[in-house]
Amino acid sequence: MRKVYLMTPGPTPVPDRVRRVESQEIIHHRTKEHSAIFGRVSENLRPIFKTENPVLTFTSSGTGAMEGAVANMLSAGDKALVPIAGKFSERWAEICKAYGVKVIPVEVEWGNIAEPPVVKEYLDKDPDIKALLVPLCETSTGTIFPIQEYGEIVREKAGTILVVDAISGLGACDIRNDEWGVDICVSGSQKGLMLPPGLAFASVSNKAWEFAEQSNLPKYYFDWKKARKSWEKADTPYTPAVSLILALDESLKMLNEEGIDKVLARHSMLADATRTAAGALELELLSKYPANSVTAIRVPDGIDGIELKNTLDKKYGVKVAGGQAHLKGKIFRIAHLGYMDKFDVITAISAVELTLKNLGYPVELGNGVRAMEEMFLK
Amino acid sequence: MRKVYLMTPGPTPVPDRVRRVESQEIIHHRTKEHSAIFGRVSENLRPIFKTENPVLTFTSSGTGAMEGAVANMLSAGDKALVPIAGKFSERWAEICKAYGVKVIPVEVEWGNIAEPPVVKEYLDKDPDIKALLVPLCETSTGTIFPIQEYGEIVREKAGTILVVDAISGLGACDIRNDEWGVDICVSGSQKGLMLPPGLAFASVSNKAWEFAEQSNLPKYYFDWKKARKSWEKADTPYTPAVSLILALDESLKMLNEEGIDKVLARHSMLADATRTAAGALELELLSKYPANSVTAIRVPDGIDGIELKNTLDKKYGVKVAGGQAHLKGKIFRIAHLGYMDKFDVITAISAVELTLKNLGYPVELGNGVRAMEEMFLK
Repeated sequence: MRKVYLMTPGPTPVPDRVRRVESQEIIHHRTKEHSAIFGRVSENLRPIFKTENPVLTFTSSGTGAMEGAVANMLSAGDKALVPIAGKFSERWAEICKAYGVKVIPVEVEWGNIAEPPVVKEYLDKDPDIKALLVPLCETSTGTIFPIQEYGEIVREKAGTILVVDAISGLGACDIRNDEWGVDICVSGSQKGLMLPPGLAFASVSNKAWEFAEQSNLPKYYFDWKKARKSWEKADTPYTPAVSLILALDESLKMLNEEGIDKVLARHSMLADATRTAAGALELELLSKYPANSVTAIRVPDGIDGIELKNTLDKKYGVKVAGGQAHLKGKIFRIAHLGYMDKFDVITAISAVELTLKNLGYPVELGNGVRAMEEMFLK
Repeated sequence: MRKVYLMTPGPTPVPDRVRRVESQEIIHHRTKEHSAIFGRVSENLRPIFKTENPVLTFTSSGTGAMEGAVANMLSAGDKALVPIAGKFSERWAEICKAYGVKVIPVEVEWGNIAEPPVVKEYLDKDPDIKALLVPLCETSTGTIFPIQEYGEIVREKAGTILVVDAISGLGACDIRNDEWGVDICVSGSQKGLMLPPGLAFASVSNKAWEFAEQSNLPKYYFDWKKARKSWEKADTPYTPAVSLILALDESLKMLNEEGIDKVLARHSMLADATRTAAGALELELLSKYPANSVTAIRVPDGIDGIELKNTLDKKYGVKVAGGQAHLKGKIFRIAHLGYMDKFDVITAISAVELTLKNLGYPVELGNGVRAMEEMFLK
């Protein structure tokens, strides 16, 4: 027997209740039945996004919605401000380059953020910057970005929109799209929404829809104006991933039954406990602003990070993520994202304790778990 | 109780065996386990496509792969020859227009094809035409296109590629991509492959890969060169729809256990039986070249086509497709595509007999079914 514990920042575990619905008999997408479901999920996504704007659903990875944001809002030669703070903020820059959008990079150390005053200075200096493209949570470093502050800056600029990649953040890290003035918030299904990968989402503000009128970049499958027209009739322009839509309907019921703020509080508790345990084990966090979705922990000196990750997997069945790019072997990342509760993070930290001991690191067994238990009792 | 019979040209019924696999616990996509599965499905797609070329898999509707073919192979200002023979061949033209590719339309009556000599004349006349974009089966009219003949014409032209939309045709209508000289064949999951929607596919010839080197159109999520690099390592550039990949693994096992030529023979038999039954009921087919995936039948005079479709659905639970665009209310389409056998088409024709009787049409009950049974006994 090999029991596996998926603690990666996507895909995250899919509840049995959701998987049962996913495997129901397929239904046709041009029917009243599907339309009722699609209309319901479109409504039920709103409290999760904290928005009254339309939330569009696409059949693709989250990256498809990121690309859609660029292709629908900007034109060739436009400028976009992009903090480069990890693998997923780099993706914003790559997409812009693919479309001939000029990237104004804000270089940031991985694990840090672009400080709001710095962002403000760039935007004040160059009123031609059409968009600020940022992550909510930079998954590669486990860092939460100050979206609220960015929103205060960007909402003053008539010629700039704030576009947030909340793929790994939504449902774990608070994002109040309307209150904070986020124009576009994109996400994916396989993270906080507790679904398999295959669906992407985008909420779009009125200000952003005006930008869409000016865009001259080519798009077809990710044409958001077309998607919106269909969305208004509880439909999609192209055949959607019906079984994932059915599953989404169920996972949104679960999230809204719990209530989004309780969902966020649960993630906050699990993240806090994980950070506390790391501290109790004298392990160091990578991030200056650690997110509630995933905790990036530095591999301690003298330990091989690849071996640590492999031992967690092979010996204990605990699947965590390693570091990416120059952080490969330097960090490991424990996700507490989606269908997760206390004993999932207890499991992860217990496995870390055992693994560090296996690798000869002087760890006090039980110290991390005890610190978490003490927290949970409060 | 309401028992539903899905006879639409996609989504098609998903076998229980496949749905069980789809709902397994999710696995991470950057693992040896997923890589083994993805490598296997990539191999097992080849006999279905009848190709030794790479068959790429994307998380999107089939339309995403159609767009990818244009965006990866062509450049702005290039010319493409597009027979306009129904809703899905029109889609080729729409995608080209979105990307600034000049469409040279070949106007064809819906239900007919672009005759190969006509296509040859266009291509001979204008050596600048970079691509011939056609459907294998034009789903909106139930028409099979002469891909083999197109292949003979295009293979002589060094500057032109043959791109086939086999979304609703693959696994039902024969397409021998290598033998016939098809450069790109795109498809989707929710048709002959007996899966839910959400995956798209493209086989790409060496000639096409050379075209890709010249293309200057923007692309990111549908960047096929990047997809190929990942494919070579049994991986995908972005998180794939893992649960659908698992399901694909199972459905490909089913198809390859039966053997693609037997699968095609089964579809041929079911299509033949459906056409025979239509004849026995004195109903007229729309198409001059009826496909083996879906049969388009003209609504007889005096009958309201919308009412016919609705009665089939509401009274008998038999879901067929109606006509699209100017054919709305004029035809109905019975799909015999994917997980289908004799008694599925018997069901469909029996329901048609009952419905026509309900609507007051002078039909001889049982005539269609009898004609099918006689065929099946041979």
